[in-house]
Amino acid sequence: MHNGLKAFLEFKAYRMRYWSIVAPSEAGSGHTTSCLSAADIMSILFFYAMQYDPQHYDNPDNDRFILSKGHASPLLYSAWREVGMLSDKDMMTYRKMGSVLEGHPTLRFPYAEAATGALGLGLSIGVGEALCARSDRRNYYTYVLMGDSETTEGAVWEAVQLGAHYKLDNLIAIIDVNRLGQSTPTLFEDNVQRYVEVFDAFNWHALLVDGHNIEQLMKVFDKAREITKKPVVIIAKTFKGRGVNMLEDKEGYHGKAIAKDKLDEALKQLANNFPQAAAYNRTYSWTPKLPEKSPTAITVERSFAKMADPLYQRDSLVPTRKAYGQALAALGSTCDAVISLDAEVKNSTYAEIFEEKHPNRFFQCFIAEQNMVGMGIGFDRRNRMPFISTFGAFFSRAHDQIRMAAIGQARLNLVGSHAGVSIGQDGPSQMALEDIAMMRAIPESVVLYPSDAVSTYKLVEQMARYEEGIAYLRTTRAATAVIYDNNEDFIIGGCKVLQQSDHDRVCIIAAGITLFEALKAYKLLQQEKIDAAIIDLYSIKPLDETTIKKIVKKANNKVVTVEDHYLEGGLGQAVMYALRNTGVTIACLAVDKLPRSGKPEELLAYEGIDASAIVQKVKEII
Amino acid sequence: MHNGLKAFLEFKAYRMRYWSIVAPSEAGSGHTTSCLSAADIMSILFFYAMQYDPQHYDNPDNDRFILSKGHASPLLYSAWREVGMLSDKDMMTYRKMGSVLEGHPTLRFPYAEAATGALGLGLSIGVGEALCARSDRRNYYTYVLMGDSETTEGAVWEAVQLGAHYKLDNLIAIIDVNRLGQSTPTLFEDNVQRYVEVFDAFNWHALLVDGHNIEQLMKVFDKAREITKKPVVIIAKTFKGRGVNMLEDKEGYHGKAIAKDKLDEALKQLANNFPQAAAYNRTYSWTPKLPEKSPTAITVERSFAKMADPLYQRDSLVPTRKAYGQALAALGSTCDAVISLDAEVKNSTYAEIFEEKHPNRFFQCFIAEQNMVGMGIGFDRRNRMPFISTFGAFFSRAHDQIRMAAIGQARLNLVGSHAGVSIGQDGPSQMALEDIAMMRAIPESVVLYPSDAVSTYKLVEQMARYEEGIAYLRTTRAATAVIYDNNEDFIIGGCKVLQQSDHDRVCIIAAGITLFEALKAYKLLQQEKIDAAIIDLYSIKPLDETTIKKIVKKANNKVVTVEDHYLEGGLGQAVMYALRNTGVTIACLAVDKLPRSGKPEELLAYEGIDASAIVQKVKEII
Repeated sequence: MHNGLKAFLEFKAYRMRYWSIVAPSEAGSGHTTSCLSAADIMSILFFYAMQYDPQHYDNPDNDRFILSKGHASPLLYSAWREVGMLSDKDMMTYRKMGSVLEGHPTLRFPYAEAATGALGLGLSIGVGEALCARSDRRNYYTYVLMGDSETTEGAVWEAVQLGAHYKLDNLIAIIDVNRLGQSTPTLFEDNVQRYVEVFDAFNWHALLVDGHNIEQLMKVFDKAREITKKPVVIIAKTFKGRGVNMLEDKEGYHGKAIAKDKLDEALKQLANNFPQAAAYNRTYSWTPKLPEKSPTAITVERSFAKMADPLYQRDSLVPTRKAYGQALAALGSTCDAVISLDAEVKNSTYAEIFEEKHPNRFFQCFIAEQNMVGMGIGFDRRNRMPFISTFGAFFSRAHDQIRMAAIGQARLNLVGSHAGVSIGQDGPSQMALEDIAMMRAIPESVVLYPSDAVSTYKLVEQMARYEEGIAYLRTTRAATAVIYDNNEDFIIGGCKVLQQSDHDRVCIIAAGITLFEALKAYKLLQQEKIDAAIIDLYSIKPLDETTIKKIVKKANNKVVTVEDHYLEGGLGQAVMYALRNTGVTIACLAVDKLPRSGKPEELLAYEGIDASAIVQKVKEII
Repeated sequence: MHNGLKAFLEFKAYRMRYWSIVAPSEAGSGHTTSCLSAADIMSILFFYAMQYDPQHYDNPDNDRFILSKGHASPLLYSAWREVGMLSDKDMMTYRKMGSVLEGHPTLRFPYAEAATGALGLGLSIGVGEALCARSDRRNYYTYVLMGDSETTEGAVWEAVQLGAHYKLDNLIAIIDVNRLGQSTPTLFEDNVQRYVEVFDAFNWHALLVDGHNIEQLMKVFDKAREITKKPVVIIAKTFKGRGVNMLEDKEGYHGKAIAKDKLDEALKQLANNFPQAAAYNRTYSWTPKLPEKSPTAITVERSFAKMADPLYQRDSLVPTRKAYGQALAALGSTCDAVISLDAEVKNSTYAEIFEEKHPNRFFQCFIAEQNMVGMGIGFDRRNRMPFISTFGAFFSRAHDQIRMAAIGQARLNLVGSHAGVSIGQDGPSQMALEDIAMMRAIPESVVLYPSDAVSTYKLVEQMARYEEGIAYLRTTRAATAVIYDNNEDFIIGGCKVLQQSDHDRVCIIAAGITLFEALKAYKLLQQEKIDAAIIDLYSIKPLDETTIKKIVKKANNKVVTVEDHYLEGGLGQAVMYALRNTGVTIACLAVDKLPRSGKPEELLAYEGIDASAIVQKVKEII
């Protein structure tokens, strides 16, 4: 082993510790101790193990690094400072308004692979990237640095199971076992053997190491790249606060920066603990190990030509969930970037139609929605276009991952089937009734809820073209009639006016399954000589304010909305917001009783969102 | 072994299979094959292993049974049919409108321990019940029947870790390893050894058994009750669809009922496969093993006397999160039923104040929010009153469990700290900005967002008195001024009018941190001779429509709402809904840009929700 290299790595670890003390001290907050435990690991990663081009972060063959323990962000910034991509001045902007060096990494920082900070997220992103590497036939490794506290998060074990299932030997996780959580010792404390046993049992290759021994770390990181057929986890025994006596291995210092009046003392202790590194004479000339070009790599494009129109028969019955599967398969033929992730319900969501056509781009994620969404973030970062589908209700399981995906500016396409009480007999646990509320409150999100096969088909293409964030499509279990011509266009932020006249006394706004109830209500109202406008609000966010306002105004400023979703945060309240300050009279029909098992039509009636309820409400307000 | 007993147990398994075929066939849907794999296990549970009084479900010493694989609900109903608590006619109402025998169990069924159907939930509930048994010094065992597919859910591994941590030897999980999921073979397929290894590694005691061998099952269930210091998992190798040749061990039959025209054939196959059971002569006289009374059991009461007023100093600075901790500690002294569950952030949420006072009723759940909420459901079912706290943002991790808790009519108190951008430098990953939207869309929920210590304190008591469902309290990181007298009353569904006059030109409605911005804005507006009413909307759901309408009407029908939360589904849209059709002019100030790290005041300004933004908006609309 090159002695100069070892001294250099110790020096770099020392420097990262320095920054991890100084930057938070300057900011007045930050997680210094969580950085100090992992500084040696980070030195090895950035200056020894990883093959990457620091000058070109986007080199597709670079090894990737994900800081799952996002609170240790100063360490990430320190690494890039020591690599030479940040200045001292940059470092001192940590946590300040306008700086890209935020408290927890976001995508604003150009060298962050992912936004992290909600714990137990990074490994799923890593599984996505490692699987993507294999799909793209690229040789890069994905490294994920995790804290020990976060291993109690179930999402971690979802990722562990998937990583083993796909035998991702290009995925290397490191657990910084510093024993101390935020407020108490961790679940396993310093029982490193327990981690080894659990990972081994899940069919990972676990390697144990003293996380502060540079020589041992070099060996174990070398070894990690030699393991085949299994993902690798490096269990690194460390001490929280390592190197600063006043903090080291002590409780009560999580998330604490060194006070300015103790900074000198802390830095002195650091230098005393690492005298050689502190006095390092910079003799070793480090150059990054640039990655080799993967010889048979595939590079996919996200752009694609306009898709051909579908071939649905007007008035035929097609579940929108099936149209989704058909559209996705067609999209996949048009665009190589498209992949499909399924949570073991492909025969319900109809993702199986995509799988049949594009088996190599379909990834079974089993019943583990959190990890599935996390994997999607990873695929997106490597330029794939993930369509992630499960029951709409079960996206609630991955709400935090979706929230973090938005913070990380990920472009995910989420497709939730089995919307609303109209699924019928399976009962409330399977009904998505809060998904619109959840998805609307995601920054930059799009929320779509088509009623028929044509609009679903067309909107899948629109989702793929949406590059600003998360697009959610809500599909229906039941077969519904095709009501649009195959050449009809649908856009994000659009709506369709299905009925209108010069004598409308009310405008009924619906989407998905309730649109058909609205159309039935229209006929019933016609029989009573009550004209009504009908709007298909297939795009709930953003929504077409202009058209809605125009039609409502013509319809005597009376509106009834009807949706198969709870009232709060749903379609009705979105419409109400759009119509604020216009003086309209509005009534919102929505699911307002805890649903039960029954036939779809019985449940629509039970919840007061069927044609008869619409008619009654219309008569009340006109 | 009593031969008559064995034949009897085989007969009961046969009967349960019969019902699991017949009831779904009658309903036209249902998960017959998932029942057939577990029928022998269920026979052992209900007629051999469990000590319970079928006539008195609420006997607190009964062993408890949780059907985590909720889609196998016909099996649960069959068990209670065979125990004698349901009639044949009841069984034929399965999945029909109005029946309590729903597609997946809900609490409407009087013998369901929990609503299940979102997979990977039952074990967490079981951990809660088992831990509660220990707290209550009761000797009952908690049995949880899981499917093999659901073991990929991370929540399961959260529960596994916690169960081992608390050495819950009164918790017995059974995994029905029938190899087939909904659409594909499961992750581990029939590799039962893998389950054994993983559970062993997590420090459970794993027992392997042929899940169709009654004799072996009897032995293994006997053994399970003898294990000490560890929770037990019984890994039962089974076949999906066991007993009906047309289904057995075949893909494509998940969630399928036997068509009516094939029912005779299916029942014939069943009888052929279990000839002895089919011809059983009913010689064995079964009596339930009634539970023994736990000699030193504690019985807690949920009711409690009115709490004494707090002793906060007017104008002193107290973070509402701290007031929550103080109130909870005081509540704990008043009411023995109160327990506290923490996700390893007790020093941030101030649950540590409760822990200090009531260490035996504080349960550390580590960073595993899904399991924590699931445990809360279990504690509630055993009559404890759980207060569950973590960062508000991280309740999104447990959204599905909260959704299911509501379906199961659980009375949970959730307390989310670190609301909004006002937390400052930690950045967006730590900010709760969608929690109001999420919690409002939970049926029967209450959403509270107090601004000062007194109101927080008082509302904690109100939450404890709320028996209809889930109560959510949102707390603030920063210390805010005490603005109420200690004897002020606060009620669910109330609000406080802090300023009003006869010349108000606008009503400003705020809660939590933004209330202080509203009060600053009030002063600034006063300087410009603009009178404004100010409402503290501490109860966002339900909200005090009457007062709001009255004050707004007096304030020239102009409203500005301001909240530290995203617009969608937040306070503003709740107010807007309450004020529908009243012709008011309303403007909603909310977080509308992806936040970043910065100082609280900088971020409030950045998002346009500070006093100056309020003043500007007021001037725009008056």
